[in-house]
Amino acid sequence: MLKLRGNAVVAQSGGPTAVINSSVCGVVQEWLKSDPPGTIYGSLFGIRGVLEDNLLDLSRQPQHIIEGLRYTPGAALGSSRYKLSKEEDFARLLEAFKKYDVRYFFYIGGNDSMDTADKVERFAARVGYELRVIGVPKTIDNDLPHTDHSPGYGSAAKFLAATVRETGLDLQGLITSNRIVVLEAMGRNAGWLTAAATLAKREEHEAPHLVYLPEVPFDREKFIQDVTEVYREYRYAYVVASEGIRYASGDYVFTGKGVDPFGHVQLGGLAETLKEMIEEDTGINVRSIVLGTLQRAAAHFASRTDADEAYMVGTRAVREALQGHSGIMITLVREGDGDGYRCGTGTVELSRVANVEHKVPLDWIAPSGNYVREQFLDYARPLIMGEVAPRFKDGLPDYVSLQDFDVPGLRRRLVSDAASAVK
Amino acid sequence: MLKLRGNAVVAQSGGPTAVINSSVCGVVQEWLKSDPPGTIYGSLFGIRGVLEDNLLDLSRQPQHIIEGLRYTPGAALGSSRYKLSKEEDFARLLEAFKKYDVRYFFYIGGNDSMDTADKVERFAARVGYELRVIGVPKTIDNDLPHTDHSPGYGSAAKFLAATVRETGLDLQGLITSNRIVVLEAMGRNAGWLTAAATLAKREEHEAPHLVYLPEVPFDREKFIQDVTEVYREYRYAYVVASEGIRYASGDYVFTGKGVDPFGHVQLGGLAETLKEMIEEDTGINVRSIVLGTLQRAAAHFASRTDADEAYMVGTRAVREALQGHSGIMITLVREGDGDGYRCGTGTVELSRVANVEHKVPLDWIAPSGNYVREQFLDYARPLIMGEVAPRFKDGLPDYVSLQDFDVPGLRRRLVSDAASAVK
Repeated sequence: MLKLRGNAVVAQSGGPTAVINSSVCGVVQEWLKSDPPGTIYGSLFGIRGVLEDNLLDLSRQPQHIIEGLRYTPGAALGSSRYKLSKEEDFARLLEAFKKYDVRYFFYIGGNDSMDTADKVERFAARVGYELRVIGVPKTIDNDLPHTDHSPGYGSAAKFLAATVRETGLDLQGLITSNRIVVLEAMGRNAGWLTAAATLAKREEHEAPHLVYLPEVPFDREKFIQDVTEVYREYRYAYVVASEGIRYASGDYVFTGKGVDPFGHVQLGGLAETLKEMIEEDTGINVRSIVLGTLQRAAAHFASRTDADEAYMVGTRAVREALQGHSGIMITLVREGDGDGYRCGTGTVELSRVANVEHKVPLDWIAPSGNYVREQFLDYARPLIMGEVAPRFKDGLPDYVSLQDFDVPGLRRRLVSDAASAVK
Repeated sequence: MLKLRGNAVVAQSGGPTAVINSSVCGVVQEWLKSDPPGTIYGSLFGIRGVLEDNLLDLSRQPQHIIEGLRYTPGAALGSSRYKLSKEEDFARLLEAFKKYDVRYFFYIGGNDSMDTADKVERFAARVGYELRVIGVPKTIDNDLPHTDHSPGYGSAAKFLAATVRETGLDLQGLITSNRIVVLEAMGRNAGWLTAAATLAKREEHEAPHLVYLPEVPFDREKFIQDVTEVYREYRYAYVVASEGIRYASGDYVFTGKGVDPFGHVQLGGLAETLKEMIEEDTGINVRSIVLGTLQRAAAHFASRTDADEAYMVGTRAVREALQGHSGIMITLVREGDGDGYRCGTGTVELSRVANVEHKVPLDWIAPSGNYVREQFLDYARPLIMGEVAPRFKDGLPDYVSLQDFDVPGLRRRLVSDAASAVK
């Protein structure tokens, strides 16, 4: 088959993960070794890079920098949550694709981003511009449908479980201080990450004792009862809760003030809310832990399995595109369980992924609503296996940055936007 | 010299560190190989174990468990913040020491604990009970005087710096979202840990941009000005602040509600306070990170240098005691700087350590009051060098627990106390 001549663009969208750059590395390395029909650009700050003429020729980056992306957290290309919606955005996109002769578009992101990729694919088809659009999954939330799991999840799960084990041991050694720990985990609508905290427990008395997922309506009275019972039994209690838990009414237990560009309520502050509830009702001292973005950035403790799979979906995306496919997202397909865990890749139409959220199955949650069942542990355990070995310098991981990223025009424009954003 | 016949007790006090158990390991292994004049007990939950008859014979623990302590976080013996003060406490202590024929007392802790050790030594001397008391330093706060640094600090510093580098990269890739990060670091009166965040920065534009230490009075107006300036320049800003920063008036920027058994105000919630200040005054969105006890528990990323030195102070403590010394704390003595860094041990009288706080020298802080100078970096960098290799199982560090720790009587007593602590 004759390859479609033209260049490629790879872009990162939404919140980064510890291994999102491993997918960029997979895309670029696979592209460069596939007798490429053109060069490959990185779009800086997500789709905005295309719209604003900020493309970086990744074929010119030194090999060691591209290779270093495998273990570098954050979005090395920059990311954004910009939502393509206006007709003029699509027109501008087409103009840029024509200008740079872009025929391949690799979009690394979660649900919202797959929706964007789907729209780009449809628009190109509608106007008769030949373009191969492939979605590359990433999300620590693990809420993408039609894939066994999502790259980014395993690393976040591994770090969260280690955190709970370590701070659980800390708490356990201090039961004379009468303390409860509440850890707030990321997860707006799906409790996958919160549930991963349970991987930390080896013995019944160990942390975590209680996990609260958005899949289960939250009840304050029941919560206080749960915590008090655990505390009476062990003299300490370790609670992990998703930032997105809601009451049966549908109201968030904590509702922040802002709304993001996709219209989602900005969450946060849940740990403080639960801390106040417990202290008010029981008088027991609570310590909260809010890891924030560290959950998705702790590449020093990434899962090797996850980093490798993130790379693998990148390579598969390139192969699919070069074979003439478009309008699909790469998926992870589990082959064999437990110790026999292996993972391959598959594909699914973008339209079937866009804006659909995959939640924790209710029958994987304990009837008490405050813990998970064995099925979840069997599912999640293989995903956190193996450790990565980032290069160290001066005692810290020596993560890479792309060369020539800081294009003067880009910096100037961003800084002037920033100045106007300050009141 | 004839060794004083009798048994030893080792106890852990105050907040744990990632390597506090490495010191226990050092004490126990050195004791056992030194033709010991008796057995060695672990006192469960700090000095309370002696007062409440909860001693564990550590010579009966399997070797692999003692060895596993080298890389296990939390206080494996249990810790407490119990303050010896009443005359009857000392009488009870003496009674227990006599009952178990204890002649050696190794107390691992920070400033308050060295005060306790000092009191125990004086009491024993006063009543004519021959007892060797040796203090073993530990504190992530690094505020013990007369020692170059304290075991526990290097690991906390290394983890904090990695966190700032990783979440800094995350933030940097998302500058299109107009965000500022505020990380709250442990540190009541000394800014050592907060200052360690600066080890993360390689390039001028990288995180952290601003660090606020308790050594410098906090000024809200100046703070907002600092943050705004950084934000205008880079379009993101990363702030690290000690939980214990205060206004020039002496008031904490955030004051919690409680007071601990040593009379210290319980801090926390500073990140939220700073977040509100910034959002109120600039309208820029702030994300907070509150690592809480993870700062002192993240043994998966402990500093090898720190873990080894924590072990070393334990062994030196035993040698001093067996040579007939008492009333001293082991210190770390820096021999050679930078790449030539080596570290030995020394001793100092407990009375010179007790309740004295060693703070960051003011001439190591930038004149702006919001960053550190090169001297600090030169001091701190060697302390975070090297990585540990805990044993892994199922994708997580397989930390050890002492056998027979959960003595039924102990659990029963603790649980009944706990029940009464619940309102």
